[in-house]
Amino acid sequence: MTIPIDDMAAFCKKKGLVYNTADMYGGLAGFFDYGPFGVEIKNKLKAAWWSYWVQSREDIVGIDGAIITNPSVWKASGHTENFCDQMLVCSKCAAKQRADAFIEEQTGKNLEGASAEELNSLVAENKLVCPACKSSFKEVKDFNLMFSTSIGAAGGDDAYLRPETAQLIFANFKLIQEHARLKPPFGVAQIGKAFRNEISPRNFLFRCREFEQMEIEYFINPTIQTCPYYAELENTHFYLLDAAAQEEGTENILELTAKEAVEKKIMHEWHAYFLAANISWFASLGVRPENFRIREHMKQELAHYSSACFDLEYKFPFGYKELLGVADRGTYDLGRHQEHAKKDLMIYDDDTKEKYLPVVIAEPSLGVDRSFLVFLYEAYDDDKERGNIVLHLHPRLAPITVSVFPLTNKLAGKARELYKALKHSFAVSYDASGSVGRRYARADELGTPFCITVDFEEDGCVTVRDRDTTKQERVKIEALTSYLRKKIEG
Amino acid sequence: MTIPIDDMAAFCKKKGLVYNTADMYGGLAGFFDYGPFGVEIKNKLKAAWWSYWVQSREDIVGIDGAIITNPSVWKASGHTENFCDQMLVCSKCAAKQRADAFIEEQTGKNLEGASAEELNSLVAENKLVCPACKSSFKEVKDFNLMFSTSIGAAGGDDAYLRPETAQLIFANFKLIQEHARLKPPFGVAQIGKAFRNEISPRNFLFRCREFEQMEIEYFINPTIQTCPYYAELENTHFYLLDAAAQEEGTENILELTAKEAVEKKIMHEWHAYFLAANISWFASLGVRPENFRIREHMKQELAHYSSACFDLEYKFPFGYKELLGVADRGTYDLGRHQEHAKKDLMIYDDDTKEKYLPVVIAEPSLGVDRSFLVFLYEAYDDDKERGNIVLHLHPRLAPITVSVFPLTNKLAGKARELYKALKHSFAVSYDASGSVGRRYARADELGTPFCITVDFEEDGCVTVRDRDTTKQERVKIEALTSYLRKKIEG
Repeated sequence: MTIPIDDMAAFCKKKGLVYNTADMYGGLAGFFDYGPFGVEIKNKLKAAWWSYWVQSREDIVGIDGAIITNPSVWKASGHTENFCDQMLVCSKCAAKQRADAFIEEQTGKNLEGASAEELNSLVAENKLVCPACKSSFKEVKDFNLMFSTSIGAAGGDDAYLRPETAQLIFANFKLIQEHARLKPPFGVAQIGKAFRNEISPRNFLFRCREFEQMEIEYFINPTIQTCPYYAELENTHFYLLDAAAQEEGTENILELTAKEAVEKKIMHEWHAYFLAANISWFASLGVRPENFRIREHMKQELAHYSSACFDLEYKFPFGYKELLGVADRGTYDLGRHQEHAKKDLMIYDDDTKEKYLPVVIAEPSLGVDRSFLVFLYEAYDDDKERGNIVLHLHPRLAPITVSVFPLTNKLAGKARELYKALKHSFAVSYDASGSVGRRYARADELGTPFCITVDFEEDGCVTVRDRDTTKQERVKIEALTSYLRKKIEG
Repeated sequence: MTIPIDDMAAFCKKKGLVYNTADMYGGLAGFFDYGPFGVEIKNKLKAAWWSYWVQSREDIVGIDGAIITNPSVWKASGHTENFCDQMLVCSKCAAKQRADAFIEEQTGKNLEGASAEELNSLVAENKLVCPACKSSFKEVKDFNLMFSTSIGAAGGDDAYLRPETAQLIFANFKLIQEHARLKPPFGVAQIGKAFRNEISPRNFLFRCREFEQMEIEYFINPTIQTCPYYAELENTHFYLLDAAAQEEGTENILELTAKEAVEKKIMHEWHAYFLAANISWFASLGVRPENFRIREHMKQELAHYSSACFDLEYKFPFGYKELLGVADRGTYDLGRHQEHAKKDLMIYDDDTKEKYLPVVIAEPSLGVDRSFLVFLYEAYDDDKERGNIVLHLHPRLAPITVSVFPLTNKLAGKARELYKALKHSFAVSYDASGSVGRRYARADELGTPFCITVDFEEDGCVTVRDRDTTKQERVKIEALTSYLRKKIEG
């Protein structure tokens, strides 16, 4: 059961999950504030990711870089020069459109990777005009997506809000590698905000101007291409839209395992591994694997330094959309920084006694806000039988894990005692307002997996109600903590 | 044992805790990147704060607001007009100085709260000139500390990076209160980045241009001034520098309990409570209470809307410096937003059947980076006997909790097995490099509380070495997890 993105945004506002920023002032396009329940889901999602990718592994360490850094970083990375969208400006009223999106809308053509010339000739061929005043457009113009600001007293240096977290990893590469005593293959992870001045932000949390990334840059010695972790996940099921299908204009999906994708030379072990591990992370938190699609990039979409790229896409109501790209970046980034900063970023190989520049074999970077949206879409269920919405969030992501109810107000003392005891171990709420049925509905809508009703029975038990099955069970109070722990950990 | 702030910065760089941002490009004044071990301390510190202030309480909920929000917020809050430092600009070479800091340095006078006129006449009286070219200064000039940027296509709206997290709480006040079904007294918490374009950032992490706040705004019904939590902490010991002492020009400290401070009418229950709770949070993570001082603001320092303010200060090597201010803000903020957005932010009182505007009785907001520095200063110990630095971090904050060593490389198999088993429950590292003594020293310098050596004995035990006492204990492998858990939780 799915709902349009605008309805999801309305639901998120109504339940205290996500608001337009400063909603009382009318918000601001592309910026959002997470409310009291949304922040808990977001924090749990980030903690689950960090635990899976950093804390439980020995080959990946984290960092937390600044949002504003030395502007030389963006010169070296190419962002100052090239991080642009093409924009159409009306010759009369000056209204602005993102060129590729507007022309795609009008012509139905796929303009992935189109050049300025192609866009200009499409405007001419199709006689496209400004939707606001019907006048003609000027030639398409580059628009840099970095937000800029200045540092120091008036007229100081130009600086940028980072448009991605990746470059902070490259700019600290040597320090991290030395201090954490890492040898390739290894990765560096980072969770943090990034900013892009999108011409037309849209689809709620999907394309924001301020967003959060969960980034990994993974470095290998280019002479050793095998992935030591691949075998663990080689049986992962892939739904793959390959480049050939897209070149033929079809959407035919290949169903195959990670292992088969490698054997057929569609992708190498590292890419298969990172795609499988991401699907497996989402699945461990309740996302159905069949809602993902892997899309191979066509040749013309690849950056000049990249030899292959696979997007992991999720089936949103507005279409399959990218959650992350697993791309081979070669030595492009470290090479650029080496050159611009005039510093040696090579690594010494103990075996060959030679130095080499590590290759970024993959950059499996996921949006926090997009992931939040995936979890909400998976969880959302307008349950007609119950007559209320049920959010089937994984217990590890639910903002409240347990809600405690006194059957009547006479039981408030006993119920509050239980509430306080459970609060040491779980995220617990106390609800004494309205009928028990009303309280169940309220808990369902926030995704609370367990409701506990304290009643007049003198058997030392309480009733635990399961959100998903609505089944009720009598549980001894002294066994409650371990009962709930088992349920949560599955 | 303390070290100057520059030495602390050098130590942090050397150990992979904190780097100047993009250090390979020479950094950028006032901006820092947290390295692989620093990010773990910072994340643990934030999680501990959120658990103490939000998750374990029923009266405080969290949010996570945008860094860039609707600019009307900053107009309403007064930041657009008033969030300024005074700046001295050289009439010849245009070099800039922060006026109060520069004049304080030159004259030794305390210029807290000084007006532009006072600063100008001090410059004239003392014949102060530009330190760079010895020319005279222009009149002092306001310099707004907000970083600005623009949104949308070129020439879009002016926007600001938030200079504090507080206003996102006020701007969402009504939605939060309704959705989380809160009645005063209640608080709203937020952890997030804020940005101030300081004229002269200094003292490493103490005064940055990009920093992170752990914010609480606490709302009460002004007709009910008692604090229901105060009794729990009334015996907390305070070291207080009151306004009277400062007005007399002394630094005499009053030693008294929170209760005595309330009884002597130095402060009210809510302020005593929030000061005590903050000291108690730091103490629960190993900070010595005698390193804090509470400084009462003098009348001339108070904002016009504030009736009282107490700073919690920590004894840094560069003097007692503010960690947080507990200030009574009255209805100033909600009143301003009510007026500017033309929205009703009042709360209905079920008992009196009347509406009222809640009062912000306290805003106990703490800097993440400043707290990080406090924990490092408390932990740092250059242990001459051992011949290495020991970081006595609380086990809940240490980046690595357990390090596992094989006594010799022949034991690698057994040691790695143990390492993998422990990794499910703790932050564990594996170290097989150099002598065991060298490995202990390496663990000490990162603050790792427990080192486990796997040896040839066949008794099913390993040796656990305690970082602080250096004592070694034989522990059964099957009992290790519960042994370590007990030690960590104390």
